[in-house]
Parts: sequence; C-alpha cells; structure tokens
Amino acid sequence: MIKITLPDGAVKEVEKGTTPFSVAQSISEGLARNVISAKFNDTTVETTTPLTTDGSLTLYTWNDDEGKKAFWHSTSHVVAQALEELYPGIKLTIGPAIENGFYYDVDFGEQGISEKDFPSIEKKALEIARGKHDYHMRSVSKQEALSYYKEQGNEYKVELIENLEDGTITFCDHSTFTDLCRGGHIPNTGIIKAIKLLSVAGAYWRGDEKNTQLTRVYGISFPKQKELTEYLQLLEEAKKRDHRKLGKELELFTFSQKVGQGLPLWLPNGAALRERLEQFLKKAQKKAGYEMVVTPHIGQKELYVTSGHYAKYGEDSFQPIRTPKEDEEFLLKPMNCPHHCEIYNSHPFSYKDLPKRYAEFGTVYRYEQSGELHGLTRVRGFTQDDAHIFCTTEQLNDEFKNVIDLTLYVLNSLGFDNFTAQVSVRDLENPDKYIGNTDDWEKAEQAIINAAEEKGLNYVIESGEAAFYGPKLDFMIKDALGRNWQLGTIQVDYNLPKRFDLTYKGSDNEMHRPVMIHRAPFGSMERFVALLLEHTGGNFPLWLIPIQAIVLPVSEKHEKYAEKVLNSLENHEIRALIDKRNETVGKKIREAELKKIPFMIIVGEQEEESATISVRRHGGEDLGSLNVDAFSDLVTTEINSTLKSF
Amino acid sequence: MIKITLPDGAVKEVEKGTTPFSVAQSISEGLARNVISAKFNDTTVETTTPLTTDGSLTLYTWNDDEGKKAFWHSTSHVVAQALEELYPGIKLTIGPAIENGFYYDVDFGEQGISEKDFPSIEKKALEIARGKHDYHMRSVSKQEALSYYKEQGNEYKVELIENLEDGTITFCDHSTFTDLCRGGHIPNTGIIKAIKLLSVAGAYWRGDEKNTQLTRVYGISFPKQKELTEYLQLLEEAKKRDHRKLGKELELFTFSQKVGQGLPLWLPNGAALRERLEQFLKKAQKKAGYEMVVTPHIGQKELYVTSGHYAKYGEDSFQPIRTPKEDEEFLLKPMNCPHHCEIYNSHPFSYKDLPKRYAEFGTVYRYEQSGELHGLTRVRGFTQDDAHIFCTTEQLNDEFKNVIDLTLYVLNSLGFDNFTAQVSVRDLENPDKYIGNTDDWEKAEQAIINAAEEKGLNYVIESGEAAFYGPKLDFMIKDALGRNWQLGTIQVDYNLPKRFDLTYKGSDNEMHRPVMIHRAPFGSMERFVALLLEHTGGNFPLWLIPIQAIVLPVSEKHEKYAEKVLNSLENHEIRALIDKRNETVGKKIREAELKKIPFMIIVGEQEEESATISVRRHGGEDLGSLNVDAFSDLVTTEINSTLKSF
Repeated sequence: MIKITLPDGAVKEVEKGTTPFSVAQSISEGLARNVISAKFNDTTVETTTPLTTDGSLTLYTWNDDEGKKAFWHSTSHVVAQALEELYPGIKLTIGPAIENGFYYDVDFGEQGISEKDFPSIEKKALEIARGKHDYHMRSVSKQEALSYYKEQGNEYKVELIENLEDGTITFCDHSTFTDLCRGGHIPNTGIIKAIKLLSVAGAYWRGDEKNTQLTRVYGISFPKQKELTEYLQLLEEAKKRDHRKLGKELELFTFSQKVGQGLPLWLPNGAALRERLEQFLKKAQKKAGYEMVVTPHIGQKELYVTSGHYAKYGEDSFQPIRTPKEDEEFLLKPMNCPHHCEIYNSHPFSYKDLPKRYAEFGTVYRYEQSGELHGLTRVRGFTQDDAHIFCTTEQLNDEFKNVIDLTLYVLNSLGFDNFTAQVSVRDLENPDKYIGNTDDWEKAEQAIINAAEEKGLNYVIESGEAAFYGPKLDFMIKDALGRNWQLGTIQVDYNLPKRFDLTYKGSDNEMHRPVMIHRAPFGSMERFVALLLEHTGGNFPLWLIPIQAIVLPVSEKHEKYAEKVLNSLENHEIRALIDKRNETVGKKIREAELKKIPFMIIVGEQEEESATISVRRHGGEDLGSLNVDAFSDLVTTEINSTLKSF
Repeated sequence: MIKITLPDGAVKEVEKGTTPFSVAQSISEGLARNVISAKFNDTTVETTTPLTTDGSLTLYTWNDDEGKKAFWHSTSHVVAQALEELYPGIKLTIGPAIENGFYYDVDFGEQGISEKDFPSIEKKALEIARGKHDYHMRSVSKQEALSYYKEQGNEYKVELIENLEDGTITFCDHSTFTDLCRGGHIPNTGIIKAIKLLSVAGAYWRGDEKNTQLTRVYGISFPKQKELTEYLQLLEEAKKRDHRKLGKELELFTFSQKVGQGLPLWLPNGAALRERLEQFLKKAQKKAGYEMVVTPHIGQKELYVTSGHYAKYGEDSFQPIRTPKEDEEFLLKPMNCPHHCEIYNSHPFSYKDLPKRYAEFGTVYRYEQSGELHGLTRVRGFTQDDAHIFCTTEQLNDEFKNVIDLTLYVLNSLGFDNFTAQVSVRDLENPDKYIGNTDDWEKAEQAIINAAEEKGLNYVIESGEAAFYGPKLDFMIKDALGRNWQLGTIQVDYNLPKRFDLTYKGSDNEMHRPVMIHRAPFGSMERFVALLLEHTGGNFPLWLIPIQAIVLPVSEKHEKYAEKVLNSLENHEIRALIDKRNETVGKKIREAELKKIPFMIIVGEQEEESATISVRRHGGEDLGSLNVDAFSDLVTTEINSTLKSF
C-alpha cells in the first residue's frame, strides 16, 4: 500500500500501482469523468500512470490550466498524425501546448501548407480524434529510439534524442501514431470534440536562424464545439479591439521607421489622453502626500554601477553614450529609482520628515529585440507613473495600505472592477537568494499580507516570487474579454537604500536606513493606454475620452447655430468638435460612431427654433431633445458616477 | 582731401591725415571731449590714428559697447604696467577687454598673487592713470619686435609674434610701458578714474592644459568713481540673486555627481514651479490652437542624417547609442523638430487642415564641455517649450503675429516689461549662404517685419544674422539688474520641410510644401527659471510661487486653529504651509522671509477669538487682521492683476 496526499491535505491509502484515474474514481464518478491530467510530486503524469510511491497528487480537469495544457498537447499529436497521413514524407519536430492552444513545427520539405489547407487537416484530425484512441506511454532505450527515427530519416528527432540526458526516454502511442514525448496527455482522443487550426508561420529549428526554417502550425481544441465557437468570437472581438488598430483609427499614436521601432509618437488625441490620465493621477497623488520631481533621462554609468543595475543588465541594454571630449559614459535610464535616491541623498532628513514620497512620470528606455516589439505593450521607451516612498520600517504598514488605496482608486475610476492581487514572498528554503535581514523581511511580508487582508483584496500568495531585494504585490486585471494583464505593482526594497547609503536621523539621534517602496498604479502610460483601449474597445470613460461630443449641423444653414452650441458646450467644459463637412447627417453619425464619440449632437431647423439640441448616444440610443444646460448636467452626472475624488 | 562718411550718411571732406578726434571736433566740442575710440571701415582705430583714404567712420564714447571695450583694454595696459612695477620679472602674455571689464594673463613665476594684493595693485594702477599718459601706437618690424621680447626673456610674446601672419606688427607705448598690441585704445590714461580688480584664476597658456598655467587677473574700470560704486552694488545684488544660490535656498533643484554634471534634478518645489509654468503655457497654447504631442528622447541616427543635424553637429555631440544585438544606432535628441516632422508625415493633409501646430515640452540633450556648464543656464539636458507650426506661405504672416501675441502674453504674465526684438534677416550680398527661393525669403522677412511693426515691438533688424534655413525674431529681455538675456525665439524654416519631404494638397489639387515655424516663448524651462530667479530674486509672481502663504501659530495652544486656517486656505486654492516648530514667531517670520513666502499668517489668542488672521507681507508690510475670505479676495485680485487669460 502507498499513501497519496490530496491538495486538501486528505491522505488516501491505496494499493501500489493505482492510477490517478482510480484515485479520482474513489473520490467521485463525476471527477473521474472529468479528470484529464495529473501531477504527482511536482511531475506531470498521465491519468493512467501507475503510482508506486507515497506522494502528493493533484488531479486536473479542463477547468485547470494544467488540464488545458494536457488537452492541447494531446491534440498536437492528433494533428501531427493527420499531417503525416495527408502529407506523407514530412518530418515532425516538436509540438508543445502554449498559452492558448498548441503548435507543431514541421519540415514539409519542398511542399508547404497554407490556411486554405486547414479545413482538410482539421477534418482529418477530428476523424482521428473520434476514433477514441487511448494514449499509451512506453519507455524505450536510447538505441531503440534513435533507430526508430533514423529509419524514418527524421534528423530532427534524432538530434533531440541524442541531446537527451541519460534517463528514461518515452514514446507515446495512439492509434497508428507514435511520437517521442515526455508525457502529459489526456486519457483518450475521444474527448477532443473541436479542433481549429489558427495560422501558419515560419520558425527556425531550435529558434536559431542558421538552421532550417520549419513550418509552425498553430491550433487550438476544445471538449465542446460551443467552446470553440465562443473562442473564435472572442478572437474576432479581440482583433477589433487590438490597440494597434484602435490607436490608428482614433489617431492616438503612430510609429516612424526613421525615429525607430518601439518608440511611439503620441499624436494630439493620444497626448491629450495621456495628459488627462497624468493630471488625474497627479491630483490623487497630491492628496496622498506625494511630491513631484523631474529627473534627466540619462545618468552616468557610475550611477547604475552603484545601483547594481549595470552589472545585472548592462550588456543587454542600450549601450553607453560617450562624449566627444571627456572621459565620461552615460546610460539611457532604464528606471527612475537611482535618480530618486540621489534626490533623497541631496538633503539630510530626520524621522520627522519621513515618509518622503517622490513621484515622477519618468520616461525610461529599455532595449528589446525588434522581433519582441508589439504596439504599445512591448516598446523600447515608456513612461512610468513612478514613485518611490522612503519611510521607516514602522511606517511601512501604513504606507503600503495607502498605496493600495490609491491603486484601487485608479482602477475603479477607470472601470476595472475585476482584479486579483498576487503577493510575492521569499522562498523560505533558499534564504541566500535574498538580501536584507530576516526580521525586516518578515515585517515587510506581513505588512503586505496585512494590508491586502485589511483592504479586502482577493489575493494569492506566491512563495519564491519576491524580488531579491524585497517582497511585492502585483495587481492582475481581467479585461472585458476575460484576458489577464499585470498592471500596477508595489514593491518593498531594502537593497537600494543600502547601495546608495540612504539614511535618516532617528528619534534616538542615531542614523538609520529607510525602507523604499517602488510603486506604479498604471505600470506605464503606454501599456496602460493599450490595455484601456482593448478593455473598452476605445469607448473610454467619459471623463477621459478625448472628444466627448460632436455637433452635427443638418445643413449649412444651421452652421451658425451649431457654432453657438459648440461655444456653449465649451463654456460647460465639455470637449466638443463640430463637423461642418458637406455630408449627410447619416454619414456624419456613422463616422462619429467609428470615432467612438460618446454624444452626437444634431442641430437643424427644429432645434434652432426651440434653442435645443437633439442628442444621440454612441451606440444609437436617442436621448431626445434637450437644452445645453440639461445636457451638461447629464454629462456631469455620468462623469461623477465613475470619477470620484480621492 | 579725403571723404569721410558718418553713420547718419553725412559726408565730410577733410584733409588727408585728419584724425577721428579732429573729425569729432569738427562736429562738436562736446563730442570731441567724449570720443574715446573709433571704427574706420570696419577696423578699430585710435582717436589719434591719421585717416588717409575715403571711408566710413564711427565715433565711440563710453556709452557705446565699443567705447567701453577700448576703455577696458586700455586699462589692462595700465594694470600690466602696475604689475611689472610691483612684481619685477613677471612675464605678460595677453590682456583683452571682455564683456564686463578686462583680464590680463601673467606668468608670475614662482611667486603669485591673491585678492589681498589687489588694493596695492589698484593703487599703483590709478597712480599711473592719473599721470595722464597718451597711448601711442607704432609699427615695428618682426625682427625688432622679437628682439625686444627675447631680451626680456618673455617666451610668450615671442611665440605670439612668431605666429603673427606677415603684416604690420604694432607696439603701444604709454608712460614707460610698451606692449605688443593690435590697437583700440582711448587717447589718454587720465580718463580712467576708477580701477577695481575683481578676481584671480588659473588659465592655461593658449587655453591648452598641456601648457604652463598662468594667473588671470580680472578687473574693471570706469570714467567715474560713482559708476564703479554702482557696478559693485550691482555685482553684490547679482550675487544675492545668483540662481544657483537661490535654487539651493528655495530647494528648487540640485545636481548630483553620480547622475552627472549639467543634468539638473528638479526637487519638489522646482518641479511644482515647472508644472505651473507648463500648465500656464499649455492653457494659452490650447486657446491659440496648438495641439500637444509626445515624442521619445532618442531617434535613429538616420533621422538626424535626414534633418542634416548629424552632418553638422554629430561629431561634437553625445555619441551614438548602440544596441547589443542589432545593427542600429540611436542619438539622444538634440531638438524636437525631426520628430515633429515625422508626426506631420504620418498623416496626409490638405490646405484645409493647415496650420497644424504641434507643441511639446520636449527634453533635449546637447553635449557641453564640463567647464562650460553653469547652473541652469548652461546644461546638458533641458526642456524646450517647443512647438512647430506647419502652414502655407499665405498663412505665415498671421501665424507669426499669433506667435508674437503669445510670447508677449507670456512675458507680461511673468513681469517682464523691458524687452527688445531682434529681426535677423539675410545678408543680401551673400545669397549663396541661404537655402530656399528669394521670393519665399522676401515674403518671410517682410512677414516678420510687418508683424513686429504691427505689434508695436521695439525692434532692430540685423542683416546677415538669419539662420541658413530662414529669418527669425529673438526676444531680448532686460532683467531687474539691467542685464540682457535672450529668451524666446521664433524662426521660419524652409529647410526641414524639404528634407523631410513634407507636403499638403492645395486647393489646386497639387501637392505643395508647407513652411515651418519653430518657436519657444520660454526658450527652455531651465534657462527661463534661472532668469526668473535672477530677475525676481526668488520673489516670483504670486500666481507662480510654490508656497503663497505660511501659517505661523504663536504657540502650540493655537495649532488646532492654525490647522483650521490652513484647511480654509487650501479650500480657497491658496498654496499654504504651516510652521508648527517650537520656535518664536520672530524666528519663523525671519525664515519665511528667507524662503520668499509672500504672506505670513500669524494666528494667536486674539485671532482665534475673532476668527481672523493677521497677515504680514514678505518684506514687512502689515496687512492687519482680516478673515480668510477677505485674504483670499486679496490674493485673487493680485493674481488677476498680473495673470490675465490669453
């Protein structure tokens, strides 16, 4: 008999050789029906793998990320089989699960496939799946494995096997198909009910551009056809909301090859949006006792040697800037903290002066390979809504709570109500990985957990995820399409105060070292605006949107009145435009809809006579005829419902 | 007989050999008494130099810059003589006039002098001056000149003479003193009535640090003792107003050796001041139809090759930034215009869309040698209040006038009422120096002159001072100490639109090239704040000053009431602090005075009982006892008197 510990701590004594599936059965038939993968002592196993020692067992269903991973990886075998049957002579390489689906890298030789081949491949793969074939893992000797693939002439698999460290080599069989595979499959192909190939792309063997270019086939699969349909709808919606597409349509930002990749140019609408976001945060930060500072975008190399960043990231960063006549080297600043430490150091402080909270919308530059760049989410220059709080250990608790309050205020004002918090703490088994004394760490971790608890955050604790210099709390946001994003971060730091020799005079008249908190509720202006675009589809909260209303005169005759209305709207501090083009109102409305303008204000004969306006909401709702004062009240009420003061 | 043309165009026929002094005499005895230097056909001459050809003559008195130059240069001879008499064996090198006074670089050998030697040197120099010695210029042969100085063992003068191009070598004698000299002296030492040595410093021979270090003695002189006294008072006042000193006292900015020289760190008070200035200008710019943009602080080298800046300044600038993995080079941006051109280029425009006015508070980086750096006025990174207007040639006139209006608004709001404008136009004799067609230049120059005229500016036209790409208008400000500063600039540019191939579709459906205006009313935030500090001595206009009022409770007993007052002030949007330290009110007032806080609000027994405040103005004026509402009205009235809306 062996002892199996379940995640809830329950221990089951079962016969040696019992499978995870049987354990599931012993819990409930329902679970057994749904279990598709398992983890035994930190190793992924099949539901059919016999368990032979004591250990911890976690069972996964489709609803778990690990379950999906097994599902998609298993589907990649089926798709590979389909490809082999349809395109004899191709060479398979690797086929892992990814975040959404799977891919398989294939050497198609002279031939190749394109999207129009997808339907026949999907059809063939589904046929195979419907055969309800079990997945069987079996151990093979290295010799056996090599000769299997040498016979096929598949040099890729041969190379993989040759590079395998000595240990067990496993093959996975299903139906007539066999693949070199580490494991992690669902029990049977029959539960794969929907398979969709998504795209093809080129990919170098082992990611090295000196090697052969393979064809990467991306796909996804589901246990229900309905789930695939929903997923495709989501993809469609995500495409519509792609911030790169919306950014162009709304004229928020652009890129220029001459200026350089990954360096956004903010157009007037985008710059106005940024300014509004910045002013919003500045106002809240002022109330929260922050002081703004401004620091340069470069610093001497020495500064980053002191901070430790140069040793850690120097080689992979933008390279040093030399000067023509002097022996100096500067770096583009990759973060603002060293500059803020130097500001702190420019003045002697006593405990009575703390906390000092220095905030800056600081633009930083970090080198990313051009292939990694993506719209505003992966750029080479971005502006952090950065701040550094220098406080005593005793103040840490309150400061942390204040930062959470501010972050929640920011998220609420921008319409994000679905978020979780991740508290990253030390790995207690590897204390050497961290700097600072245990006592401080305990206090800091406890301060974060207490704060998260007290603020009623929905949080998880991740052991071993802390930075080497201190624990942190990250906000994970679920957007309108259900996708997760990491936004604001709050980090405790014992490292920089030491490296920059920051001190304050305590009430005991001795010099002490302050603790530092790094925090950025938005994260960066670029990433936040990208997320906001995809979350709202460009329908920003009314207080934030660049243009709140557009006045549409029915004909040239009513232009004068339209201008009067515009003027009156501006006096009510409503950001409005006028569309005087010689087009039909219908066309003007359609274009205003595309531009996501919340209110369309139609003025013609009737409106002019009654000194009113006809208001149409974005999306189509007719708010009828009202006067500008009433409209302004309506706008104010809507703004006040999302934008409270901090 | 020869023909002498005077600056007013009058022509005098005089005998060959007549001196400038005689010409002055022929005009008036008063002028003859005051004339101390002259220029004949673009060459500086003595008042005693015989004129032997036809030519243009300008006579200078002490009131002309050229007159002062001759006066100070002549004094350097007198001081050199005094030094030789007091310190036999020293070696003289060069002794030019500078902007305020003169210096003489001397090799004192083993000995040396310090400020405590100044009185005896000044005394000796004045004694010599009172001898009323005439300055005599005489030509010498190179051989003669060399043997004179070889005999003295003065290797410096020997080197100077050896390096002289063949031509006339002149010596200048007065009293027993002789110096190698190109000329430009006053007639007689007797008019030097006051001499003051100001400082000593080290200076390398010929500015090369590989050479011997000499002693540079700085001094100044005046035709009246009273003028020296006034100048020294001015120096004293300027020292008190030195923006580096005030910047420290008011905690506006600091520098860090680790961050790097010439890279200011703006402290909270300074950052708040900047923010206020920026918001002020943004508001006015919005009304003037500008749109804000945001661009990165780097650009590909290619961008500056296109703009032409790389060819012109590349070698003397911060050197290119390489990336670790790709074949790209970036430059820190030295100006914002190329980025704005790329923004313009990201969108097709028609004549109906113009003018486009892109504004940005753009931080730029320019390499300056560390020895050239000075506080905030000469830095390596600074933020321009930059904008670029893209318009049609027809719009240039109006756009230029609008920019003048905006600049005047800025200057008036900040208390500068003493300024002149300099219109820089082509040198008509060297048309090849300029790009663009003559017709455009004429239109542009005329547009600037018309605009200056129409706006009633006090302006001068400087021929040949235009940039190669277009004419410009600079604003010269006289500050509270009478010193001139160049601030805002407005420039017309035909070059960049061509280099970036900027176009718009005209009403004729053809593509046309827009004209570009570069403009910056402040110039840069750094320079402007420095100037504002020195102009106001830190007593900024009330609307701008970081802290408008400080509440001073008479004792701890009144702290609660003081806080209530503070709160009430903040509700009235008055920026206020409280000083709760356990110090006397007297001390608190003295410190508030040092911090230039405009209003000190004293609250004690009496104030608390009557729910009032006692207000003391910076400088001492007692505004008596009033309530917060009345005080707020007073503040608002004062603000509105300087800060009108645009």
